[in-house]
Amino acid sequence: MKLNVHVVADLLLPAPTPTILQIEAAEIAGAQTLENPVVLIGPPAESEPFRDFYGNPCRRVLLPQGNVQIEYRVTIEQPDAQFPPLRPVEADALHLPTSALLYTLPSRYCQSDKLVAMAYDLFGEVAPGFARVQTIANWINEHITYQYGVSDAGTSAYDTAAQRIGVCRDFAHLGISFCRALNIPARYVSGYCLGLDPPDFHAYFQAYLDGRWVSFDATERQPRPALVQVAIGRDAADCAWSTFYGYGETLYLLVEVTEVGAGE
Amino acid sequence: MKLNVHVVADLLLPAPTPTILQIEAAEIAGAQTLENPVVLIGPPAESEPFRDFYGNPCRRVLLPQGNVQIEYRVTIEQPDAQFPPLRPVEADALHLPTSALLYTLPSRYCQSDKLVAMAYDLFGEVAPGFARVQTIANWINEHITYQYGVSDAGTSAYDTAAQRIGVCRDFAHLGISFCRALNIPARYVSGYCLGLDPPDFHAYFQAYLDGRWVSFDATERQPRPALVQVAIGRDAADCAWSTFYGYGETLYLLVEVTEVGAGE
Amino acid sequence: MKLNVHVVADLLLPAPTPTILQIEAAEIAGAQTLENPVVLIGPPAESEPFRDFYGNPCRRVLLPQGNVQIEYRVTIEQPDAQFPPLRPVEADALHLPTSALLYTLPSRYCQSDKLVAMAYDLFGEVAPGFARVQTIANWINEHITYQYGVSDAGTSAYDTAAQRIGVCRDFAHLGISFCRALNIPARYVSGYCLGLDPPDFHAYFQAYLDGRWVSFDATERQPRPALVQVAIGRDAADCAWSTFYGYGETLYLLVEVTEVGAGE
Amino acid sequence: MKLNVHVVADLLLPAPTPTILQIEAAEIAGAQTLENPVVLIGPPAESEPFRDFYGNPCRRVLLPQGNVQIEYRVTIEQPDAQFPPLRPVEADALHLPTSALLYTLPSRYCQSDKLVAMAYDLFGEVAPGFARVQTIANWINEHITYQYGVSDAGTSAYDTAAQRIGVCRDFAHLGISFCRALNIPARYVSGYCLGLDPPDFHAYFQAYLDGRWVSFDATERQPRPALVQVAIGRDAADCAWSTFYGYGETLYLLVEVTEVGAGE
Repeated sequence: MKLNVHVVADLLLPAPTPTILQIEAAEIAGAQTLENPVVLIGPPAESEPFRDFYGNPCRRVLLPQGNVQIEYRVTIEQPDAQFPPLRPVEADALHLPTSALLYTLPSRYCQSDKLVAMAYDLFGEVAPGFARVQTIANWINEHITYQYGVSDAGTSAYDTAAQRIGVCRDFAHLGISFCRALNIPARYVSGYCLGLDPPDFHAYFQAYLDGRWVSFDATERQPRPALVQVAIGRDAADCAWSTFYGYGETLYLLVEVTEVGAGE
Repeated sequence: MKLNVHVVADLLLPAPTPTILQIEAAEIAGAQTLENPVVLIGPPAESEPFRDFYGNPCRRVLLPQGNVQIEYRVTIEQPDAQFPPLRPVEADALHLPTSALLYTLPSRYCQSDKLVAMAYDLFGEVAPGFARVQTIANWINEHITYQYGVSDAGTSAYDTAAQRIGVCRDFAHLGISFCRALNIPARYVSGYCLGLDPPDFHAYFQAYLDGRWVSFDATERQPRPALVQVAIGRDAADCAWSTFYGYGETLYLLVEVTEVGAGE
Repeated sequence: MKLNVHVVADLLLPAPTPTILQIEAAEIAGAQTLENPVVLIGPPAESEPFRDFYGNPCRRVLLPQGNVQIEYRVTIEQPDAQFPPLRPVEADALHLPTSALLYTLPSRYCQSDKLVAMAYDLFGEVAPGFARVQTIANWINEHITYQYGVSDAGTSAYDTAAQRIGVCRDFAHLGISFCRALNIPARYVSGYCLGLDPPDFHAYFQAYLDGRWVSFDATERQPRPALVQVAIGRDAADCAWSTFYGYGETLYLLVEVTEVGAGE
Repeated sequence: MKLNVHVVADLLLPAPTPTILQIEAAEIAGAQTLENPVVLIGPPAESEPFRDFYGNPCRRVLLPQGNVQIEYRVTIEQPDAQFPPLRPVEADALHLPTSALLYTLPSRYCQSDKLVAMAYDLFGEVAPGFARVQTIANWINEHITYQYGVSDAGTSAYDTAAQRIGVCRDFAHLGISFCRALNIPARYVSGYCLGLDPPDFHAYFQAYLDGRWVSFDATERQPRPALVQVAIGRDAADCAWSTFYGYGETLYLLVEVTEVGAGE
């Protein structure tokens, strides 16, 4: 599948502000390739591309004072992947790649240490592997109400487990927390999604199953037709589309994802 | 049924300390009558009995510095009550006695305002009245692990909803919170219980159903043979067996409840 | 001083909803007398006035489905009170009226049990009595940023102590919590205030000092010229201007407090 | 300075348990060199040494069921370091090494996002650089009570900011959080400390100042004579001395740090 992504963000900055942007789709060999990526900042400001701790594409820039527009355009090709079927095996901390162990630990928004009993109560009896994580995603889909404006940047999986309401970010945090509570490595993915209504940045999660990272999106019962990875991390703290070292306000945000040749 | 209650508490106080004791069983016409109640404080200290906000029997005393022993003995008669069967009707805020409305509001350990979605998700479809509250108590019994030493005096229903572990106090707080989230008045009861193992103070909750307060104990699937009411309140904050205005340490605690004539 | 209070609230109710209103100023002998109070509900609905647990004037009503307007008008006379000066004495749990003891305990939004060390660290050395509570109010005024839209109905004093931002309700909760942590009885007051900008419902707190309840408003360094008491309680949970047993949305709210004869 | 470190941990495991150990001192060129390190596991179990995400020395092992003893011995040489004096300059997100940016973000136990107002209120006026972080450490030392048994594995900086009590781990978390709230990169260090009473594992924090990581230990007003680094991370979640993928109980723990040639 081939997708066009177009993002426009109008910001207001009371002072020149060092800023990290994480809006660019990742180049992933065999899974996600980019054509004609463009990042525009206006008024013009020189930005420094770099890879963060997780290898995510980031951009550091001193945004000038006043009204600033960030624009990002790219065409993304995602080949139809053919994976061998996942075997129903337990994540085994003894044989996991050591790089996956980090994703078994609790993090800012995923207090898996506090949700162990709940995770075992709900999912302890489910067959291991893909089935168990899909059951987690389905449970979240069924029991958490999707609603804007109730949760905020301080809301964590611990809150969502009790309050049962939130947005894609909260759904992902809860899924990650249940996985980690069951010793399954799980990580957060920020990105883009075809067909999201209303259009917005998106978030989902990945679990490490039978030797590879598998995506789950608890906001939908049907697999999403196209998920585009921007950044991976332990949770949303690592994957913010903008981190201001100072203060910045978003006045307007456009996120457009379209299928190339879909005749829209 | 006739019960003997015997409590001994050895305290250590670094300074003379004003203290409120709530250890004396309530006298409740037709339901709980007391014989030969004795409160002993050693070294002797004069105590002032009074009724708190909720009408609970309390005792205010200036405990002296050093080692202090509190002892309470009483025989309690609880006639076999014959109540008309409860009708399966909704709690209706419009016709509740206004004195019951307080018990629909959130309190220190019962953040019912944050558990509304969870309560409706779990219990919204259950028939109203006794069945619904019994379902709540059963759910808690089944899904919360009873374990000493994990929760503490700061633990609230919001924590227990996520962490799924606690003691009688936590079980009661969660039951109360679910009821209030569903607009059913519910209150906390501290007291004594026959057959508790290990023996200790006990806590359970009451819901206001079809015109009267009905007791539920989520720590047991079978109704408790004998629950003795000491204090009622919005939650444990109102019913502490001892409140020190200063600092006091409990070195030893004995709580003994026996059935009179049970030939033990 | 003589004040006119005028409140208009436009509500939207998706279904007929039992509702408790706490918008009427309290009649307090010698301190606050009412002239020509009027409560109007449109479309007309019969309401039942009652006193709650704390003696506050309340009104219970089944609001009809759809758009509903609540209007309240009253003229309030507050004589210039002449109180003997407060002596700098400690609150003494041993001699407090037993009715004040309730206000030494933690509550939903005032987790004084968790703020004991902070309270002693900040205020433990201040002279007892009025000076200490005024120091608490001043500290809050200086260190908490007054800002709408950051805290919400779930925010408690524990949050405000760390996050340092909030509105009058949060300021009151923190003041109450510090007082209780120091064993000073303190309670929440909802009401009206002359000169508030923007006009709104208001909240402040009272501490029990030298035999009477004394008002403190941490949102201002200068004593407020006129505070009108509607309801007292342990915290905001007891004093909501509207409690819907169901769901209600406030579309518009006008709160007008003017001085009679002030020639405005 | 030359130190001997000796650790003995007796564990009880109800089942064979995959376990990660982080008890071995790090080899740090020019700052910390190791002689004769020995890790013994009994009954014998083969362990796999590896470096985690942060480059910390870790060891993965399948611990057998039953009683298990872990022993670690090493001699550590820490040359007297001569660093150029730190210039009083602000951490500047624009020119930080990108590897340091991770340590400006909130984490499991360091909710710096919620403590921004408190950090600016307390430390916003202090001169930047070393002085500011030392002021943070001193403030924590003065205002947080060091006490075992009150905080636990679930306690975070948000709690410590309000509750004002804790152990070395909590002190470090709060210091880190204040730094990050002020945009200063800060990280957690687990390790060993000479002269600790009672002896135990230790934790402190490092801030990135003028181009290097500088250690601060808020548990002491005087710089510690010798701090030994085991692991660095975002907070304690990344640096646990043992992580059981299952369940393990510590029956006995000995941590001995002595100065070589100190004639003890």
